[in-house]
Amino acid sequence: MGAITFSYPASTFLVRCCSMKENHDQHMQQLNSSIRTNGSFRSPVKVESLSQTATTTFGQAVTIGGNGLRQNIPTKKQLVDPHRQGLIIEGGVGYRQTVVIRSYEVGADKTATLESILNLLQETALNHVWMSGLLSDGFGATHGMVRNDLIWVVSRMQVLIDYYPIWGEVVEIDTWVGASGKNGMRRDWLIRSQATGHIFARATSTWVMMNRKTRRLSKMPEEVRAEVAPWFIEKQAIKEDAQEKIAKLDKEAKYINSDLKPKRSDLDMNQHVNNVKYVKWMLETIPDHILEGHQLSGITLEYRRECGSSDIVQSLCEPEDDEILHGVVEPDYCTNLLNGLSLASSDVINGALTCLEQRPIRYTHLLQIKGEKQNDEIVRGRTRWKRKITTVPFST
Amino acid sequence: MGAITFSYPASTFLVRCCSMKENHDQHMQQLNSSIRTNGSFRSPVKVESLSQTATTTFGQAVTIGGNGLRQNIPTKKQLVDPHRQGLIIEGGVGYRQTVVIRSYEVGADKTATLESILNLLQETALNHVWMSGLLSDGFGATHGMVRNDLIWVVSRMQVLIDYYPIWGEVVEIDTWVGASGKNGMRRDWLIRSQATGHIFARATSTWVMMNRKTRRLSKMPEEVRAEVAPWFIEKQAIKEDAQEKIAKLDKEAKYINSDLKPKRSDLDMNQHVNNVKYVKWMLETIPDHILEGHQLSGITLEYRRECGSSDIVQSLCEPEDDEILHGVVEPDYCTNLLNGLSLASSDVINGALTCLEQRPIRYTHLLQIKGEKQNDEIVRGRTRWKRKITTVPFST
Repeated sequence: MGAITFSYPASTFLVRCCSMKENHDQHMQQLNSSIRTNGSFRSPVKVESLSQTATTTFGQAVTIGGNGLRQNIPTKKQLVDPHRQGLIIEGGVGYRQTVVIRSYEVGADKTATLESILNLLQETALNHVWMSGLLSDGFGATHGMVRNDLIWVVSRMQVLIDYYPIWGEVVEIDTWVGASGKNGMRRDWLIRSQATGHIFARATSTWVMMNRKTRRLSKMPEEVRAEVAPWFIEKQAIKEDAQEKIAKLDKEAKYINSDLKPKRSDLDMNQHVNNVKYVKWMLETIPDHILEGHQLSGITLEYRRECGSSDIVQSLCEPEDDEILHGVVEPDYCTNLLNGLSLASSDVINGALTCLEQRPIRYTHLLQIKGEKQNDEIVRGRTRWKRKITTVPFST
Repeated sequence: MGAITFSYPASTFLVRCCSMKENHDQHMQQLNSSIRTNGSFRSPVKVESLSQTATTTFGQAVTIGGNGLRQNIPTKKQLVDPHRQGLIIEGGVGYRQTVVIRSYEVGADKTATLESILNLLQETALNHVWMSGLLSDGFGATHGMVRNDLIWVVSRMQVLIDYYPIWGEVVEIDTWVGASGKNGMRRDWLIRSQATGHIFARATSTWVMMNRKTRRLSKMPEEVRAEVAPWFIEKQAIKEDAQEKIAKLDKEAKYINSDLKPKRSDLDMNQHVNNVKYVKWMLETIPDHILEGHQLSGITLEYRRECGSSDIVQSLCEPEDDEILHGVVEPDYCTNLLNGLSLASSDVINGALTCLEQRPIRYTHLLQIKGEKQNDEIVRGRTRWKRKITTVPFST
């Protein structure tokens, strides 16, 4: 259990951490020997005073009460949380939260934005730990992790979105955790329409532990395994066998946004740039005419290192159109039709054009920190887009 | 009733609309004769198809259902909304919603951000209308307003924040509406700690109606008055008699951020810049050393016109320090001590320094659209800041 915010996305991963199932321990060795981090998943942070005293508008001093009273983190497993509309499912180890899509969580097309969805995944993951009774102070660490100075870092995240919920829609978000190799954890999510039961979105992520002081990846101590392993189940929201390596882009990339500077409001508790900001930076490189007619249907993120408040960031983006035209990467969609083009039949050509029109568009992304000598990778990404469903005027 | 998002903050107000109680009708005349708008509170917008059909990951076509089923807007007054955790209060006309502060709604100091608070005010206002049975399609307009092609526009907003809720804290947000002159509406809010009952924040806002097509301010038709007037109460969250006119800044302002360009994700349903973005642009002009040590305790916004996606915006900001030093604007805090300075008593000087150290800091703000010949005002603002309460390390 013990998850996790992807607000604290990780530190330097010099090797890919995504195919952890088989090679996890080997990777951990490599990581521990080569890792260089400037990041922090949960380093000491400053918060409001435990006993906030201040002056009201009427001038008298008032003690607002300690954070304990105000936050009320459970010390034992809870089965139901009426305030968060959460409950424990999956035979006692999963978590389900009912959420209404709020007016400010939707974009110009009245559907939930990707940022809102990523935020809700973070929120439900943390509330799962909240319900477990394992949550210590901090963002998702268990009591055993705090005793061992360990924090969670995310190495990989994948989200597939078939439908975007609309303003006022009630959705159920299920989340659960599983083992990932010997020392990692997988966290999955499903977002479902409450009214119809349809699955709107699926997501999976991989997490490892890092020592807060040494900044080195860590094996999972027995004490922590005893806390989290009872929550592990095998169920997977997304089949893992389709993982493809994300290529590293360079200065030849078609779209490049340079000189991106984090703003104050982009920073999280550790003064590091929030993960959702990463995704915004990635998507802002995509041309407007694509964004207008398409919606994101999938995103994969591979985290390498964090980004601090003084870093200058570059967002690189490369479309995979050419590969599609050559039938390399979309066999299910276009290969057969494209192979038929030599027949020069107008039916086939029309079919191929229709297919190309409807094909998903894919982009490869890279966020990097601009350095004097070299650029350090923050995160590699891949996005997949499909045409928006025809819109109709909203007014009656 | 019939409120209102401040996502759609208004169109050109060439005169101040805030002191509406007495002079409302006279102002309306002026506004109607002089107004020039480029904005829209609710012009025809595009949304997802009413019957969204698409292909699932398994390939079969699935109809997700109409927006009616998905949104489920009540056609009659509801007293309780279990999904939104809302209920009707104040003898049947007010609305209270219980809200948990989410992990992504807090900033670096683990307290709710101003943006989150503004978003929650918008959300509860809309949910109030939702519960009323008056909500038509669109963002807060009643059925009668839609029949008359009317939309709400906000002219003024004031928020006072004594305490910022923290991550995981449960708060109750109360909201209600009242008359503002003959043709306007006031909407107020209170944010309260559920655990202790302490009031954390208060807010008030003023709204008028505008014809969606002619872009002219409108009187409230009898049909609409019959809908909303039964919801009006006299109660006020903030006493209005302390209203001060906000001065208009010019190019002599101490801090100026130029060339601000709306991004895609800053735009709302009408392709206009969201109100929360306005506030971010305002606050980003304030120097970091002030933002680090202080928290916003009050903000007043006077809306003049909207900002579109192609506008280039300038954010101007001027501190009121000098006035404070001269004892002009903070009589309650410093005047007596400063008057005593001529005595050159070290006690008095120390006292004065302590007072200056603890005094609220005030800034005047202006957002304007850079034009070739002239700059058009979007919104004037005033912010007030107090020193942050001493922080303690979060880790145990």
